[in-house]
Amino acid sequence: MFYHVKELQFNARVSKPDPRFASLLLEQFGGANGELKAALQYFAQAFPAKQPYPDKYDMLMDIATEEFSHLEIVGATIQMLLNGINGELKDAAEKSEIMQLMDGTSKKESLIHEALSNPQFLVLHGAGPTYKDSQGNPFSGTYINCNGDLTVDLRSNIAAESRAKIVYEYLLQFTDDPYVKETLTFLMTREVAHFQMFEAALATLQPNFPPGVMQADPRYSNTYFNMSNGESVRGPWNEGKTPGLGETWQYIEDPLAHVMETDGLINRKPEGTDITAKTAEKKTKEVSKIRTNEIKSAVPKGKNQWSTYAPLTAK
Amino acid sequence: MFYHVKELQFNARVSKPDPRFASLLLEQFGGANGELKAALQYFAQAFPAKQPYPDKYDMLMDIATEEFSHLEIVGATIQMLLNGINGELKDAAEKSEIMQLMDGTSKKESLIHEALSNPQFLVLHGAGPTYKDSQGNPFSGTYINCNGDLTVDLRSNIAAESRAKIVYEYLLQFTDDPYVKETLTFLMTREVAHFQMFEAALATLQPNFPPGVMQADPRYSNTYFNMSNGESVRGPWNEGKTPGLGETWQYIEDPLAHVMETDGLINRKPEGTDITAKTAEKKTKEVSKIRTNEIKSAVPKGKNQWSTYAPLTAK
Amino acid sequence: MFYHVKELQFNARVSKPDPRFASLLLEQFGGANGELKAALQYFAQAFPAKQPYPDKYDMLMDIATEEFSHLEIVGATIQMLLNGINGELKDAAEKSEIMQLMDGTSKKESLIHEALSNPQFLVLHGAGPTYKDSQGNPFSGTYINCNGDLTVDLRSNIAAESRAKIVYEYLLQFTDDPYVKETLTFLMTREVAHFQMFEAALATLQPNFPPGVMQADPRYSNTYFNMSNGESVRGPWNEGKTPGLGETWQYIEDPLAHVMETDGLINRKPEGTDITAKTAEKKTKEVSKIRTNEIKSAVPKGKNQWSTYAPLTAK
Amino acid sequence: MFYHVKELQFNARVSKPDPRFASLLLEQFGGANGELKAALQYFAQAFPAKQPYPDKYDMLMDIATEEFSHLEIVGATIQMLLNGINGELKDAAEKSEIMQLMDGTSKKESLIHEALSNPQFLVLHGAGPTYKDSQGNPFSGTYINCNGDLTVDLRSNIAAESRAKIVYEYLLQFTDDPYVKETLTFLMTREVAHFQMFEAALATLQPNFPPGVMQADPRYSNTYFNMSNGESVRGPWNEGKTPGLGETWQYIEDPLAHVMETDGLINRKPEGTDITAKTAEKKTKEVSKIRTNEIKSAVPKGKNQWSTYAPLTAK
Amino acid sequence: MFYHVKELQFNARVSKPDPRFASLLLEQFGGANGELKAALQYFAQAFPAKQPYPDKYDMLMDIATEEFSHLEIVGATIQMLLNGINGELKDAAEKSEIMQLMDGTSKKESLIHEALSNPQFLVLHGAGPTYKDSQGNPFSGTYINCNGDLTVDLRSNIAAESRAKIVYEYLLQFTDDPYVKETLTFLMTREVAHFQMFEAALATLQPNFPPGVMQADPRYSNTYFNMSNGESVRGPWNEGKTPGLGETWQYIEDPLAHVMETDGLINRKPEGTDITAKTAEKKTKEVSKIRTNEIKSAVPKGKNQWSTYAPLTAK
Amino acid sequence: MFYHVKELQFNARVSKPDPRFASLLLEQFGGANGELKAALQYFAQAFPAKQPYPDKYDMLMDIATEEFSHLEIVGATIQMLLNGINGELKDAAEKSEIMQLMDGTSKKESLIHEALSNPQFLVLHGAGPTYKDSQGNPFSGTYINCNGDLTVDLRSNIAAESRAKIVYEYLLQFTDDPYVKETLTFLMTREVAHFQMFEAALATLQPNFPPGVMQADPRYSNTYFNMSNGESVRGPWNEGKTPGLGETWQYIEDPLAHVMETDGLINRKPEGTDITAKTAEKKTKEVSKIRTNEIKSAVPKGKNQWSTYAPLTAK
Repeated sequence: MFYHVKELQFNARVSKPDPRFASLLLEQFGGANGELKAALQYFAQAFPAKQPYPDKYDMLMDIATEEFSHLEIVGATIQMLLNGINGELKDAAEKSEIMQLMDGTSKKESLIHEALSNPQFLVLHGAGPTYKDSQGNPFSGTYINCNGDLTVDLRSNIAAESRAKIVYEYLLQFTDDPYVKETLTFLMTREVAHFQMFEAALATLQPNFPPGVMQADPRYSNTYFNMSNGESVRGPWNEGKTPGLGETWQYIEDPLAHVMETDGLINRKPEGTDITAKTAEKKTKEVSKIRTNEIKSAVPKGKNQWSTYAPLTAK
Repeated sequence: MFYHVKELQFNARVSKPDPRFASLLLEQFGGANGELKAALQYFAQAFPAKQPYPDKYDMLMDIATEEFSHLEIVGATIQMLLNGINGELKDAAEKSEIMQLMDGTSKKESLIHEALSNPQFLVLHGAGPTYKDSQGNPFSGTYINCNGDLTVDLRSNIAAESRAKIVYEYLLQFTDDPYVKETLTFLMTREVAHFQMFEAALATLQPNFPPGVMQADPRYSNTYFNMSNGESVRGPWNEGKTPGLGETWQYIEDPLAHVMETDGLINRKPEGTDITAKTAEKKTKEVSKIRTNEIKSAVPKGKNQWSTYAPLTAK
Repeated sequence: MFYHVKELQFNARVSKPDPRFASLLLEQFGGANGELKAALQYFAQAFPAKQPYPDKYDMLMDIATEEFSHLEIVGATIQMLLNGINGELKDAAEKSEIMQLMDGTSKKESLIHEALSNPQFLVLHGAGPTYKDSQGNPFSGTYINCNGDLTVDLRSNIAAESRAKIVYEYLLQFTDDPYVKETLTFLMTREVAHFQMFEAALATLQPNFPPGVMQADPRYSNTYFNMSNGESVRGPWNEGKTPGLGETWQYIEDPLAHVMETDGLINRKPEGTDITAKTAEKKTKEVSKIRTNEIKSAVPKGKNQWSTYAPLTAK
Repeated sequence: MFYHVKELQFNARVSKPDPRFASLLLEQFGGANGELKAALQYFAQAFPAKQPYPDKYDMLMDIATEEFSHLEIVGATIQMLLNGINGELKDAAEKSEIMQLMDGTSKKESLIHEALSNPQFLVLHGAGPTYKDSQGNPFSGTYINCNGDLTVDLRSNIAAESRAKIVYEYLLQFTDDPYVKETLTFLMTREVAHFQMFEAALATLQPNFPPGVMQADPRYSNTYFNMSNGESVRGPWNEGKTPGLGETWQYIEDPLAHVMETDGLINRKPEGTDITAKTAEKKTKEVSKIRTNEIKSAVPKGKNQWSTYAPLTAK
Repeated sequence: MFYHVKELQFNARVSKPDPRFASLLLEQFGGANGELKAALQYFAQAFPAKQPYPDKYDMLMDIATEEFSHLEIVGATIQMLLNGINGELKDAAEKSEIMQLMDGTSKKESLIHEALSNPQFLVLHGAGPTYKDSQGNPFSGTYINCNGDLTVDLRSNIAAESRAKIVYEYLLQFTDDPYVKETLTFLMTREVAHFQMFEAALATLQPNFPPGVMQADPRYSNTYFNMSNGESVRGPWNEGKTPGLGETWQYIEDPLAHVMETDGLINRKPEGTDITAKTAEKKTKEVSKIRTNEIKSAVPKGKNQWSTYAPLTAK
Repeated sequence: MFYHVKELQFNARVSKPDPRFASLLLEQFGGANGELKAALQYFAQAFPAKQPYPDKYDMLMDIATEEFSHLEIVGATIQMLLNGINGELKDAAEKSEIMQLMDGTSKKESLIHEALSNPQFLVLHGAGPTYKDSQGNPFSGTYINCNGDLTVDLRSNIAAESRAKIVYEYLLQFTDDPYVKETLTFLMTREVAHFQMFEAALATLQPNFPPGVMQADPRYSNTYFNMSNGESVRGPWNEGKTPGLGETWQYIEDPLAHVMETDGLINRKPEGTDITAKTAEKKTKEVSKIRTNEIKSAVPKGKNQWSTYAPLTAK
């Protein structure tokens, strides 16, 4: 269960209202790489991990809980950047002068201009945060990746933290408010911290490459198909050793000819690798056994109970 | 900020795996009336309430936090209903017999059958909960209503709790597992409790009808347009007193004729009401003043800070 | 079947084109709380009501039909606010001067500026209304709530009318056109009227609390969990009598301790209530019987026919 | 404004409940080519047509209104196919036996099976139609095409009717109920009728090819790029005369070489056509003038009023 | 398989950056009528056509491949219109002056203004094209129509090309850059060319009306229901011959009376047509036989292989 | 531009039709981790890379092109798994017996059963592939990550390949067709190959941690907040050295107390790190300079042209 502490994890402040930046900042409230996405992603991944991998469960829930706390920080900042507008919208009886509080220059014309930039703050949500991104797209469950395998999920998380980090980096270039910059810098840095946590956790799961259980087919795991014209560009991604399996890259200069000659690659033989169909199959069986046992030994087949309870003093 | 307690708020248990009911139960995990929707809705509504209405903020955050805790209960139940599948999916090297654990009757054929019922548990999410509904639609921010006005938001919440309640009622008819029924009954009852909390809170906001600030135009607030043929069906919704404003319903038997005669209703006069354009306008001004003052007196115009911090001992 | 009368229900007019306000007004054409949502919601709810509750069916169809008529009013207003643009877009051979008609100040630069505010009016829809909201999100079936139970559906409708009302209230603050204000005031007032119709209809369905058929579990229906820190905020939502069931609120000051002590709430006993598990079950059976009979007595089990036809003179 | 006649346009009947076909039939209620899509598409297209093209407006509104009436027929059929379920869902106190009414063979197991096929009928919508397609995807405004130009919109409609027709054709293969077949055949035939109405209307708009106003560039309007390998397949789409402009198809056997030789097609000259840059430009101006004048002469620039009203007797 | 040639099909150039037009141009990159939609639509339609209709397959794949090449042209143009921004976003350490390169007038204020017009270029995507439309809506599979019947699919394509054409026509009015106009004119013209290809191909499929296989019911195929009031507007869409089947339009002046008199149209008899229930059924059988045979004779029932391979020299 | 080779990259075959597996396989055609997503993601990322990082552009386009070729392989396999159905759907005049070809056991009942599992193959798409996932959700642009920074984008790609790999691994457990297994194994292996390409390419971009340009704030980059109760779980993600920056993890046992004591973390000092605010700022400037220069030196500020053309012989 969750418990709410009214104080924010970080002391978020604003110098003055700035509805335009509030609008941009929605990207991290309800956007594809925002705090809600992160919190929900780690939270969902934690369920299948709880019984077989309680240490990873603990980490995922710690970070998920922190991300919910960050969502609150972002929401509070947006709310403070919108201050004044909510009150003015209630002043329905008078000629509204909502924007006077912002720099003194703006009246109705300015208000309408703002309204067109992010109209739903004004005509729908009444000046509060909402689960949309900076362009008004509603939050979507499609943002979230959970695949029930930690060697995959942790990599999804590393990538997710990378994206969240760059979005904060971009956002920092669009505000001059020192308080807001301070808050965004904290949030950006936490993405860097989480990135490292997930990377460290991934390293404790061995073997973790290829992700999942099944091994690669050695006929196709080290081939690079040159699918475009022009002079051949070569680099460590198509020459030398492959970084994961340590095979030697095979560069297929003319994929069409190669496909024709191999009857659609079926007759291709492994090259530049010590892995064979047989050793690959053996490794699949080994990893398969490890993972299955880890899970089966921890997860009951029949009756199941998520928590046990003890008086608090016993804790 | 949030804090996570590893014990569930309710002691969720299952008698045995049941992936089919897990699939139905997703409706309350990532569906339109599910726990995530509720938690996020009250959480978002809390931001604009914090400074002007700290008592409502406290209630909204208490309930939002409880809903996050219910989301966890639903997720844990789904996970336990899927137990065994996750482990079998890792057994990639062997002929999978994923379904043997479910009643002993089912093998691959049964598995495929299940897969077609909710394929993404098996081929995408690897047997864990996901933010989708019982038909696989991803969670959407469009489910959430927050309009920056408590006389509206609390009514949205009352309706939301009603819907969540009926969905649990329907779900209860599709499982025989006594543990699961116990959990669903708890969750269903909490919707009834929250319904009453929101209703009680709404009553403390006066006036609260019409919702918002502006009063209705007395020419149109008590007319009922009989837009369909057949004999006239009469009831308290079109005869007698209107329940909110206490006006007398005016039944427009032939809307087309009435529209023609009144030049598109412009020339219609108020009937069956003591409210006049003038008194309505006066009331709008009064309510407007009340609400604006409530907000303006509490929300600073310039620098703002969400929380203050004090050593824990001082608390 | 429907019949279309070319005259609008309300005499909608505009003083002059105003594409910016047209863009905002889309919120009520294709938005989450707009007229299309309302019309479709009541229309869908009417189907299961037709045979068992013909009086409610009549009301739902009357209001649905009126909402379709309002959708037409909003569409017509948007079209008139865009007047001139459609014609200019056809003037593809000349240097377009679309915006000259709006105040004389604006040329191409202004046009592009408009285009960026709501580009799809110009580059996609060719200056006509479209089923999107004020930020360009396409209309979604997720906006619509229909749950096959009138004690739920009518509450969804009361909330929906509340939201539609506040959106018109907000919109009214962003136009100075007296004709448009007149139209919006009419539409806003009708939401207030419909709110009262649904409330009156709900009162005729007894019992209607809790919504649906199943009664609440008295162990959990009157507890308030204090899920956040800080001093306890008390109000009628957590002290005194509960408004629906008339039980006495039980305030759980320390939910974590309480959950631990009650083995995850399982061992909690009802307090502050006269309802027992037994009386609740009895009531569930009673309501269950009432509702089932209402429906079963009206809906044939085999062959069914929706309408009967008689020569018009016989009507 | 709309008026509702309680009798359906077509006498829809069912022989007995069939929730499985109800589920398929949703495709035409809330699906991408269903009745709602059609009704809303023609309705939206009618707004920009009203003042400049009142005859097309009349046709679009007639057909839109008929499509709303068809939506009602489909909804009524779905409701009758679900009969019995709604009542059983209210029987929450008893062991539900919802499916007994369907062939006598099915009990809870069967019920759950159904639930998994289209769970939301049972656990969300309580056995009534809903704006989703046969796979549960919510209706989306993206289904609707309106581009503010009748030479485009009418073609969109012809295609839309074609798709709606084939979906009814497919659906007819999945039911044996003679009453349902009768209704579907009526609805399918009306798509064929509407197709012809739109085609006839398009022919009255001259010129209507290319759609819109601007003429094609004669360098590129009659070239066919052979973008794939294998022997050249030739047909009237790449040899002989082009059907719209009457130019002669130019077959570019080797697009890559041609692009290289023409500096990215910039230096390509018109071939196989009498149209020149000059005559194309002249035609653009002519069509431009026609269309602009049609619209400008009919649509006022300032104050505008959608309807005029007269006592019904005068009509 | 595909092969990529680094040179664009058309020599796309820009005179200078213009992020605002880049934002509009997204409509044709990730929008409902854009190049991605077209490419994917024809590509999907090609699969069921490959074995039974190899000539149509060749055409569909040629055009699909060209549309992918157009997608690349649009993306390249957007990228060039955004030039400079990507580099500035990396200049995170300095006070950013992203907009100086655009006309010299714009600094941070201007930048924020741009950001609000299409914020995701700046705060999410880092100045590159993205699969969204001009209002930021993500690309959706719902844009694509493929119904597994060429008499339907080709009509969907004709309509799709019409819409794509008008969007380019609209876009051309919002840029002054001669290079960009040149590119857009090429792309617009290609839509005109494709339109004619699909029309020519459709003509080779006989019979192709009604689309699909089933014939219309002669009782309903030539009736026009006058569903709205006002004087009767008559035109070739409701008087004279129907363009597809050559029947005579029957104008139902008073649909309500007609429906009542015919017991919901069931008792209506065919009028103004030589087609009878019998001849229609016979024709359905004939077309059914033709199409079934075309497909069955080409598609194997058991083992199947998509391609055969031969050494390139043999080709 | 693209060129299409009619032969598939891999010789895809099926043993017999299997519409159920076809339905599952849609996950990799139009699903969140499918081939379309991969192709479009790398294609979009290539645009901003083309001028500053031509080697990465070449790699991204090679892999994108291969993914389009894989999309074709998946589509062809789905089509072959559906063989027979398309033809039967045309047999509209006869009692359809679509499923006889599948094992001989299944007739209409079976057909309807299939239809309910993935109805849109039958009633909408006419037995061909479509851009949906295994549950019928339409493809969405939200699946695609492109953030305009290769240190982020390549990490997104590594995660994307991991997810695509595990989905193939899961799918392989639901078919017994040896031909289909062969194809899926090829496709799964290619994800492993691409993973390694992206990893090798990322390593050539130095520095690449943290992703983007801005450095982390040393006060927050190495702290681990223990946000949940229970005994402390320790591992390399919260003790020892951080893997990216080489700082020492600081474990915050009681986050609430720490937040209170540091005035919302503002007064926290860096611990366990040699990085200071100053050195971090200096590094930000350095990386900033590197990246900005890489881009600015390659991307022209004014006129720009994407390709240059030369006669093919010159290539």
